[in-house]
Amino acid sequence: MNMETSSNEIVNEVDMLNASYDAFEGVIINIENDMDEYVFTTLLRTSISQWRQQGKKGVWLKLSLELVNLVKPAVKEGFWYHHAEPTYVMLVYWIPETSHTLPPNASHRVGVASFVVNNKGEVLVVQEKSGSFKGTGVWKLPTGTVEEGEDISLAAIREVKEETGIETEFMEVLAFRQSHKSFFSKSDLMFVCMLKPTSLDIQKQDSEIEAAEWMPVEEYANQPFIKNHKSFDSIAKICIAKKDDKYVGFSPLLTTTATSAKKSYLYSTYQDQ
Amino acid sequence: MNMETSSNEIVNEVDMLNASYDAFEGVIINIENDMDEYVFTTLLRTSISQWRQQGKKGVWLKLSLELVNLVKPAVKEGFWYHHAEPTYVMLVYWIPETSHTLPPNASHRVGVASFVVNNKGEVLVVQEKSGSFKGTGVWKLPTGTVEEGEDISLAAIREVKEETGIETEFMEVLAFRQSHKSFFSKSDLMFVCMLKPTSLDIQKQDSEIEAAEWMPVEEYANQPFIKNHKSFDSIAKICIAKKDDKYVGFSPLLTTTATSAKKSYLYSTYQDQ
Repeated sequence: MNMETSSNEIVNEVDMLNASYDAFEGVIINIENDMDEYVFTTLLRTSISQWRQQGKKGVWLKLSLELVNLVKPAVKEGFWYHHAEPTYVMLVYWIPETSHTLPPNASHRVGVASFVVNNKGEVLVVQEKSGSFKGTGVWKLPTGTVEEGEDISLAAIREVKEETGIETEFMEVLAFRQSHKSFFSKSDLMFVCMLKPTSLDIQKQDSEIEAAEWMPVEEYANQPFIKNHKSFDSIAKICIAKKDDKYVGFSPLLTTTATSAKKSYLYSTYQDQ
Repeated sequence: MNMETSSNEIVNEVDMLNASYDAFEGVIINIENDMDEYVFTTLLRTSISQWRQQGKKGVWLKLSLELVNLVKPAVKEGFWYHHAEPTYVMLVYWIPETSHTLPPNASHRVGVASFVVNNKGEVLVVQEKSGSFKGTGVWKLPTGTVEEGEDISLAAIREVKEETGIETEFMEVLAFRQSHKSFFSKSDLMFVCMLKPTSLDIQKQDSEIEAAEWMPVEEYANQPFIKNHKSFDSIAKICIAKKDDKYVGFSPLLTTTATSAKKSYLYSTYQDQ
């Protein structure tokens, strides 16, 4: 038995962190159980040295709340934060001397506002119990945040159901708005969606909604708050044009992403012949 | 001098963390200089006790990379991760017994693909040096990621300029696609933008782009890869319809957000009379 080979094998099996490789010459460290900070630092140094020899570039380190003791030693070794979710923080490290080409973190929150109009030309509106519209008496379209992994169309249907009890079908995206620095340094994309009601009896949610009703679209659009704010006024005019069959928005087409064949929706006015 | 008042004053001035209050009964902790972990834990406990008496709810703790030693003690006291950016991690804590109503983290990355067509009916296309299209010979529309705080329209113009040297004006959004789990657990929104070239001489970027050229739109659309992937095929058909003046997308209208009067763009086909 060759001693050098044997020694290398021991190094690989015992003295490196458990990790897998990705398609971009990256390394994904996998730590599942508690680890002593000193042991972690030693293994991390040995591992990075090996990965450097192998030509690896980016190193990903996902640490759950339970492994919080390893955040400080990782930062001391040159890792920095990439993103975090409630149960974990993801840290990254770049091995080469060049500047890193790691993909950026998510930058936008996505919201929906739903235009639901019945066959009497009335729009479904709500008054909110909290937030900046609390106590203002302003009637608004039902709005909400798109959840992680949720389609825009399903988020619009879900929010209307949650706030008012009304069942709907998704029709199209009438407009969308991008705004910045709405929350820490993040941006917002808000999609105004046209939905068709399939039920009419309102059962409002008590914790967030003060009141909900069907209101003539023109009465909604003529509220002083709406008329005095360009963004709301423009959206109200689009909704009125839609109600009067004078407007076409973007409809969803079920498709797939090119590289992974995962389901996705493409929104446009284009109708393939 | 009343000893009790004096004692209270000392508690407030010396034994609490420096913090400010937000409009949602929240507390934003402000730590600027190094702090011993034990001192931090003691001050945090005293502070939260006081904030509880004041009816405060959410507590926000932003820790820079330099303050990484305070991440572990914060988690031990019940904080969890909200989000992170390269230079800091944001932790949160909820004081009441109720379940928290803290706003969610950003959930989407936003990308742009640019359809730039010259007056000969040729589209600006590139071959990429890295990623999943590396070495495939596929000609693609120039694409890129919208940066933090950047308008979709400006991102499209910037990416075309960076990859090909071509100067453009933004015209409209032809379509957009939402897909999920494209990167960790995050979603993607990709906007297909129509741009008008104001220069024609290509000067490609060498580090990311293998080749760039003006190509007849039909030749681009007829590539086997494009025809075999529904999402790419649909986008190519929309681009051809646009080139032939048979399609209208969403144009941007400069507006402001209702609550803060910050600049934002509303995209739709609606033209106010």
